Amino acid sequence: MKKANKKANAAIIVIGNEILSGRTQDVNVVHLSKWLNELGVKVEEVRVIPDLEDFIANTINDVRKKYKYIFTTGGIGPTHDDITSRSISKAFNLSYGYHKEAYELLERYYSHGEFNDGRKKMAMLPDKALLIYNPSSAAPGFIVDNVYCLPGVPSILQSMLGGLNNKIIGGKKILSKTINLKTVESEIAKSLEKVQNKFTNTEIGSYPFFKHGKIGVSIVIRSTEKKLIEDCKREIQIFIKKKKIRIIGIK
Amino acid sequence: MKKANKKANAAIIVIGNEILSGRTQDVNVVHLSKWLNELGVKVEEVRVIPDLEDFIANTINDVRKKYKYIFTTGGIGPTHDDITSRSISKAFNLSYGYHKEAYELLERYYSHGEFNDGRKKMAMLPDKALLIYNPSSAAPGFIVDNVYCLPGVPSILQSMLGGLNNKIIGGKKILSKTINLKTVESEIAKSLEKVQNKFTNTEIGSYPFFKHGKIGVSIVIRSTEKKLIEDCKREIQIFIKKKKIRIIGIK
Repeated sequence: MKKANKKANAAIIVIGNEILSGRTQDVNVVHLSKWLNELGVKVEEVRVIPDLEDFIANTINDVRKKYKYIFTTGGIGPTHDDITSRSISKAFNLSYGYHKEAYELLERYYSHGEFNDGRKKMAMLPDKALLIYNPSSAAPGFIVDNVYCLPGVPSILQSMLGGLNNKIIGGKKILSKTINLKTVESEIAKSLEKVQNKFTNTEIGSYPFFKHGKIGVSIVIRSTEKKLIEDCKREIQIFIKKKKIRIIGIK
Repeated sequence: MKKANKKANAAIIVIGNEILSGRTQDVNVVHLSKWLNELGVKVEEVRVIPDLEDFIANTINDVRKKYKYIFTTGGIGPTHDDITSRSISKAFNLSYGYHKEAYELLERYYSHGEFNDGRKKMAMLPDKALLIYNPSSAAPGFIVDNVYCLPGVPSILQSMLGGLNNKIIGGKKILSKTINLKTVESEIAKSLEKVQNKFTNTEIGSYPFFKHGKIGVSIVIRSTEKKLIEDCKREIQIFIKKKKIRIIGIK
């Protein structure tokens, strides 16, 4: 049975030169963060790092002691720039070679003659890694200790998360309430700060928006406690009413 | 006059709980990376961190020695969760208070009575910070040593970069060539690795794509030397031809 955990936090490590160069827009962080949030795990840091073995190994060793879960994305394909598996082996000082289960799984998936060297490379993993199954394209992700290694292609990554739901032991789910206002931040800054100072266990964010020709501010209240969010929302509504600010929507 | 610099690298620090929670999709990294690339500066690391003063100060102190330029995004607005300025002051052990030039600039911008406490907060900066002018909404960014602090709202951030072009001293511009192929990565992995091993001063990336119902692979060659890219491209074209792989496009 899963048990709730107090400090259920995570870091996401995005591995890939294509993100750093601006060639590719990352979308995995948003997806992973929302999924982890549903499981009661708070993402506290994200790093985007290059395809360099020592850089990856050092980053993993820097973050894996700080957070309960580490998720990496990218670098587990068949080409020379896919070095996540080798780098994780280095970080944990594990041998790197053919992983029996992964090898057999890929061998079964590909027709005779299709299981070439490139595809075999995807079965090279750190010793004793646990597999994360891939319903899209067979090539598995893997787990070493608290480090979960996923692919970079968003559709494949997303298809693999369902199989992890039972492995992640989260804390209380982080709930949120968003109040969209027709105003500017400076009009509400002082009053909002007073509410934040009163509600030290809720996190209140203020985000200006400019969309569809409208300007406004989204106030986002986040907490694991529904009652705290409601109390906080009520206090905010009091000063909004006093200031005669129009509420565009609450969700 | 600007002088080319050999190790012209940068890190981007995205400050904001809204990115970590998955509420907001960051788009500033792609924009900043491309802009820096044009100036001959390579982004080597990105971190996304929460709105926590010590976390921000420690991160800045960790990265500012490693990279020539540090760019931060977010947290320079008028609300309580905008703490970049205070955190940078802490990182550099500088006093934090009203910045004369920023104060006067904001005072001139707002009509009488509009310059309220929230707006005044945007003039609170680390002592002796240099201003980054904001043609969109007056509230300035700022520079302390090699740390450049920009806002989080993409349109405002983008409007401020033009004013920085003369301040950034880049190295040679990183050039790239992309070859799009109708194939899968495992078909080209071995041959591509051989080319990479021969061209140690170019960076060759391989990225599978699935779009408009088509599958394929983008090979991206990156280097500061045009000739190296052309030579490398030629070698790749040789094995592509031998393998009878169709080229979808080269750009």
